[in-house]
Amino acid sequence: MSAPQVQLLLTGNELMTGDIVDSNSAMIAHELKELGLTISKKTTVADDLNLLVAEIITITHQADILIINGGLGPTIDDLTAQALAKATNTTITEHPEALAHVTAWCNKRNSELNAPNLKQTMLPKGCDIISNRNGSAVGFSLIFQNCIVYCTPGVPSELKIMLAEQIKPHIKQQLPDNLICDVTRLQVFGIGESSLQKLINEALPDWPESIEIGFRAGSPLLEVKLSTYSQEATQLKDLWQEKLLRVLGDNFIAQVKEKPFTLAEHLVKKLTEKQLTITTAESCTGGLIASLITSVSGASACFEAGYVTYSNKAKSEMLDVPSKLIEQYGAVSQQVVEAMAQGALAKSSADLAIAVSGVAGPDGGSEDKPVGTIWIAWGSKKAIQSECLLLPYTRQKFQHYSANITLDLIRRKLNKTTQTPCYIKERAFQAKQ
Amino acid sequence: MSAPQVQLLLTGNELMTGDIVDSNSAMIAHELKELGLTISKKTTVADDLNLLVAEIITITHQADILIINGGLGPTIDDLTAQALAKATNTTITEHPEALAHVTAWCNKRNSELNAPNLKQTMLPKGCDIISNRNGSAVGFSLIFQNCIVYCTPGVPSELKIMLAEQIKPHIKQQLPDNLICDVTRLQVFGIGESSLQKLINEALPDWPESIEIGFRAGSPLLEVKLSTYSQEATQLKDLWQEKLLRVLGDNFIAQVKEKPFTLAEHLVKKLTEKQLTITTAESCTGGLIASLITSVSGASACFEAGYVTYSNKAKSEMLDVPSKLIEQYGAVSQQVVEAMAQGALAKSSADLAIAVSGVAGPDGGSEDKPVGTIWIAWGSKKAIQSECLLLPYTRQKFQHYSANITLDLIRRKLNKTTQTPCYIKERAFQAKQ
Repeated sequence: MSAPQVQLLLTGNELMTGDIVDSNSAMIAHELKELGLTISKKTTVADDLNLLVAEIITITHQADILIINGGLGPTIDDLTAQALAKATNTTITEHPEALAHVTAWCNKRNSELNAPNLKQTMLPKGCDIISNRNGSAVGFSLIFQNCIVYCTPGVPSELKIMLAEQIKPHIKQQLPDNLICDVTRLQVFGIGESSLQKLINEALPDWPESIEIGFRAGSPLLEVKLSTYSQEATQLKDLWQEKLLRVLGDNFIAQVKEKPFTLAEHLVKKLTEKQLTITTAESCTGGLIASLITSVSGASACFEAGYVTYSNKAKSEMLDVPSKLIEQYGAVSQQVVEAMAQGALAKSSADLAIAVSGVAGPDGGSEDKPVGTIWIAWGSKKAIQSECLLLPYTRQKFQHYSANITLDLIRRKLNKTTQTPCYIKERAFQAKQ
Repeated sequence: MSAPQVQLLLTGNELMTGDIVDSNSAMIAHELKELGLTISKKTTVADDLNLLVAEIITITHQADILIINGGLGPTIDDLTAQALAKATNTTITEHPEALAHVTAWCNKRNSELNAPNLKQTMLPKGCDIISNRNGSAVGFSLIFQNCIVYCTPGVPSELKIMLAEQIKPHIKQQLPDNLICDVTRLQVFGIGESSLQKLINEALPDWPESIEIGFRAGSPLLEVKLSTYSQEATQLKDLWQEKLLRVLGDNFIAQVKEKPFTLAEHLVKKLTEKQLTITTAESCTGGLIASLITSVSGASACFEAGYVTYSNKAKSEMLDVPSKLIEQYGAVSQQVVEAMAQGALAKSSADLAIAVSGVAGPDGGSEDKPVGTIWIAWGSKKAIQSECLLLPYTRQKFQHYSANITLDLIRRKLNKTTQTPCYIKERAFQAKQ
């Protein structure tokens, strides 16, 4: 037996105007996923009776399960009960269980039962109550056109508890035993979505259809998601994940367990494990690399000092970069960026350094060093490497991407990897002196 | 003539699984509202060809305008073009304008045009291109069942610019003249939404109903939006805007013309006008203040050097803060933060300095100096001021908010204002030594 088709219907004017961003549907999706269920369609409408009725009729015709969220409150724009009654061609009547709930709710708070409260007890005839520990409005369910409809409150804390304690167990009872969903998420940096897709097509042409592969472009990490929907596919997954990891090589950062991590978090963890410290000498990123590192809790174990040397004078005064070197080669040059790294290492006594100097734009570019040119130096006193890249983006994206590239370069150095990352392969640039 | 019916169709597996929370539809709703348009229904489906086709047919039958968001990317789960072709019973062909865009995009990045890139040029026959300044995928539009369909990318930065520059003007052209909507947006910092609402209620109790007042909490600027929907109301607005500005006082930053500005942009502009330079000495913000300033194009006119002194040793070595002072009062103290500011002024020869030292958390707090404590010093050699605040937020929010507070303090100093901002009134904290 296949999985039931589930749809959501969200109601609320504030969802349509954009004044609030809907997070309830993500919560519902996460909860249902634990049952192996996915949501096929999500419809959001304003608090409009006719629209609601039309959607309820359409969706119950398509789906096996419909979860309606919102519109259970005490005000006149809360229309869910009324819409369901109209759609199912029944009447609204006072539900004794709902009345008992609202009465108890008011008593507990020493408040009088008023007309808005009573409105919340008027529900479609014959529906079942879903109790609500956290609010005055009860939820309710009914079956229409062979579709089970759950009506839930819009307040997230009320929805959460109702889902966990009532709706999920109720759905689970009705599910076939063979429904399994297993998801693996892999964080990747140094290869883009389209290059990776191409690589997989070439290296793993017989990728099995039963292992769904999805991409989610983050800034800046890419997430690769492997989903399986059967026990056989899940058993197959380990093997194919291994193959994929070989294709990903050094671009693979980590498997996501609870929540995704940033590159800076990975780096701080790695440095702390190895008891190494790092310093930064930043021109065109202006402190962003240091701020990414120090955004991580516990960064003090590996970071003591950073140098934002935005002007040439600051490069010389703070990091002892000879002004002659800057005059001769320009601030955006291999010589200067390596001297910045050496200077930062000497001044801070850190084990590792990152130094950057580039043209963030939108002004300041030249034919030899166009906007987007960046010299990066990284390494230890003993071994400083450097590369020149061309990252022709907007100023903010240039700064953000190059800052993350430097973190990744140190990560690769710590991993002692030899593979050249895509951003060097594809973006290496021969800046003229 | 009445307003056209607008619907949204969002596509993406990640929207269905709850892995990302949709903020694009709020952005679209806000933009359309400025044209006086509201969205009547929003449908979200997974990356499933048949579902997409069915929804396109249904929605174009109901609506006058359909905006599709997502599914334009280079991977096989990006299905919008294919779905539209199937729904409109046409074929997918290589669009010369799209090809030119992708080719230019790849050339600019020195990367080869690959098959996934080429996929992005295959569009429904006869569609019009919507250009994309920020990404590889172009948008496109076509008319089906008397409904104009705009296909837009899921990446928020790309969507934003496409909406502002292409789609809004295009929709506006087709709107009847009697749909007038006039929006004024005011940027505010230093007073919260509920405090401001209270202030307005008290100071301007007879605020006219025809001038809709809305708030949009940004990070960190608050935007106050005045919308009018008739010529009379628009004529009335100037007067009331004047009154509102008096209520806002020094908390008013600027009126938004094209796009909202950051506090750092305002500050860099002000400093450059006055030919003043600024430096930063950062402990708990770890370079964030410097990076906010240098994220602004042209920052080099007012910013030369910044000091990220995360450890006590760095404070002494880089800024000559006496280590005895740190031992005696602790790194998070008025004495140390003022010495940091003095040190940064002396080292950099800048006219103005910002210095911060605090407990960003989640660890490192004590009873006397709990997580969220921050000492801020700001000013010139002649006049350094300092304040201690308690900002009990998550680490990232603490860092971001306090960095922006420091920019605002300098802004107020340059404006020679005397009004105390709310963040000092409400968050001032007596940290014990």
